[in-house]
Amino acid sequence: MILNTPIDMHLHLREGKILKDVLPYTESQFAAAVVMPNLVPPVDNKERLLSYKEEILSNSKNFIPLMNVFMREYSEEELKELKEFIFAIKLYPAGITTNSEGGVRGIETVYPVLEIMQELGIPLSIHGETHGFVMEREKEFIPVYEKLAKDFPKLKIIMEHVGTAEMLDLLDKYENLYATITLHHLLLTLDEVAGGMLNPHYFCKPVVKTPKDRAEIQKFVKSGHKKIMFGSDSAPHPIKNKLKGAAGVFSAPVILPALAEFFEEDTETFQKFISDNARENFNIDVPEKKVKLIKEEWTAPYIVGDIKPMFAGKIFKYKVIS
Amino acid sequence: MILNTPIDMHLHLREGKILKDVLPYTESQFAAAVVMPNLVPPVDNKERLLSYKEEILSNSKNFIPLMNVFMREYSEEELKELKEFIFAIKLYPAGITTNSEGGVRGIETVYPVLEIMQELGIPLSIHGETHGFVMEREKEFIPVYEKLAKDFPKLKIIMEHVGTAEMLDLLDKYENLYATITLHHLLLTLDEVAGGMLNPHYFCKPVVKTPKDRAEIQKFVKSGHKKIMFGSDSAPHPIKNKLKGAAGVFSAPVILPALAEFFEEDTETFQKFISDNARENFNIDVPEKKVKLIKEEWTAPYIVGDIKPMFAGKIFKYKVIS
Repeated sequence: MILNTPIDMHLHLREGKILKDVLPYTESQFAAAVVMPNLVPPVDNKERLLSYKEEILSNSKNFIPLMNVFMREYSEEELKELKEFIFAIKLYPAGITTNSEGGVRGIETVYPVLEIMQELGIPLSIHGETHGFVMEREKEFIPVYEKLAKDFPKLKIIMEHVGTAEMLDLLDKYENLYATITLHHLLLTLDEVAGGMLNPHYFCKPVVKTPKDRAEIQKFVKSGHKKIMFGSDSAPHPIKNKLKGAAGVFSAPVILPALAEFFEEDTETFQKFISDNARENFNIDVPEKKVKLIKEEWTAPYIVGDIKPMFAGKIFKYKVIS
Repeated sequence: MILNTPIDMHLHLREGKILKDVLPYTESQFAAAVVMPNLVPPVDNKERLLSYKEEILSNSKNFIPLMNVFMREYSEEELKELKEFIFAIKLYPAGITTNSEGGVRGIETVYPVLEIMQELGIPLSIHGETHGFVMEREKEFIPVYEKLAKDFPKLKIIMEHVGTAEMLDLLDKYENLYATITLHHLLLTLDEVAGGMLNPHYFCKPVVKTPKDRAEIQKFVKSGHKKIMFGSDSAPHPIKNKLKGAAGVFSAPVILPALAEFFEEDTETFQKFISDNARENFNIDVPEKKVKLIKEEWTAPYIVGDIKPMFAGKIFKYKVIS
């Protein structure tokens, strides 16, 4: 099976040692990835953006980072200057996830920025959760997505890491809404976190949800829906931080083998999900890169640096050949 | 506020060092407690039962342990011999919770035992969860409770640590069903486990559920429903085991101060919940013991031995005076 130019539409690479540890796993499977800006301090200006991009490039040979910046009240001048260097601007409701303490509280505070983004054609990427009950936060956020979609009809809005089935219904209702799906929301439920012993390694935000949500997400992904794109939200944390309760699943090492099993022989839908939909929806123009999978047993790594990957030690039927 | 003869209808004391560490907290607040038998190996014969009871008595001065044994296929002779030493028999669906690996799989396998228990007047205590999705396991178990209640109309059945609102509706439907409520299911939701950083110390089975479940449970408890009894399910685990994912909340140190705040001035309902309902429903005859609470700030312990208690370090408005 050969995949053409896979793109991970939502990736956390961190900085320093962790970046060095995790980036090779994405580079070996993807042509490009949208890199999230929630560092400390956040990536929210040109200087920081370019130095972060440089760090990524200096640690890879054949990989295109598509950079996001963290939402704040940017001026028109700033956005005009940033535009050529970024893929999108990421909006976190304040305090919801890792290093999002500086995120936006009332969505209206960034309306002027969204106006300019719409004009300039800069997409908006959103972590869509309220501060409500943990299993209902995404559902409660639906009216915010609807309001944004209506108020900014020309702004392309990405609902990131959708874990709640009802959100996907918005895709056909609003032309300007898109969705990314992670490997863990596609394959896991809260049972993997809290069904047996508590498993911090599968704890993330949004939390993985119910079997019904998972089944609906799988159905949408298998349908080949054009507005659904793969975005891993692979989020590495050292084990000691995971044991302290940090949210995030480090899925990067196992993505293509796991998805190959999920899609089985339907490589056409796999290709759309992992690349074509994203490239077409967002006119992403990156050099072509072929990634080959062969049907051969492959064991997922038990550990990467200080980080425990998703499906650690699991034997997959497919192996990535570089 | 003076409580008369408080009884904890569901308690885990463990053995050895942990028992020594935790028992004083229960002894200072309760006249008696129903002690659960899920040790390794389980308490499921007279010899083990009496030696465990002796261990408890030798570590307390003014405390009555009401002993449970672990369900297995007991003969009539065994049960007749056990009867005078036990309060109830505890049934765990296999593999659902701590040390329940030897629990019962098909409920019909213990029907002959339930027949004898019904005849002899030995109550049945149940951890009511299926092997389904973690948030639905109690709800899915409702038909089992209904079947048991109908098939053994004279058998008193205790639905332990109810966390799902719908289960409480069974109390008025079946004369022989009773319920215990824990402090954590009364006060917490899944938000305390997974709403912020992952918090293993509030992870338990059944998991604490939704705000709606909690609100309904609070309403039932405040109503003074006669068939609802307090059972802490206080379940101490050393911190290192909690960090490995063990299920259980160690609430023993904070029970009466927390409940006093919950009931505020309604000491009548508090008294029923913490003692009278249990004594009347099950003809529990233990020596009277008064426990006094005064309105004075009290800080919950941060640590007990190697165990982190519920509400560690929280300041309460009430203090227990011994």
